[in-house]
Amino acid sequence: SGNASASITADTNAGKMKAYTCQFCHGSNGIAANPAYPNINGQNEQYLYQSMKAYQNGERTNTMGKMMKQQLSSLQNQDLADIAAYYSTMD
Amino acid sequence: SGNASASITADTNAGKMKAYTCQFCHGSNGIAANPAYPNINGQNEQYLYQSMKAYQNGERTNTMGKMMKQQLSSLQNQDLADIAAYYSTMD
Repeated sequence: SGNASASITADTNAGKMKAYTCQFCHGSNGIAANPAYPNINGQNEQYLYQSMKAYQNGERTNTMGKMMKQQLSSLQNQDLADIAAYYSTMD
Repeated sequence: SGNASASITADTNAGKMKAYTCQFCHGSNGIAANPAYPNINGQNEQYLYQSMKAYQNGERTNTMGKMMKQQLSSLQNQDLADIAAYYSTMD
């Protein structure tokens, strides 16, 4: 599938490991534990990547945005691409 | 299903009519026409409502955020609740 950024080749297996902490809110199956959070299984890979970059860049400024910014603060673009690929390929 | 805001009763039929323009990017079936946009079929109603409020409140500041703010500028909370209910009940 088209990866999120032309220069990055996404690895869904690496994404599964890197997505370990995501599951506590987004679910191990991508179905959110809380209706205030999005389901992300099968979501568009490019949208997932762009959303995570928006959080990292502080472009989502509400409470949830600040929390997500913190969650993603240590991740590199390769990590985001892998995580985006992992959840997007999830049914 | 739990509506997006305690004081609003969502109407999915009204939501279908109010969501007329959404389909050009999000698809009449909620599957985005463009991978840069999110699929929203079956997305959590509360998350959809909160995301639209975030756009209206200017809390999503990137290019897409500004575009969505404009799209939603004329809608009231009842409209957002109806649209959120409509797409969330879509398979």
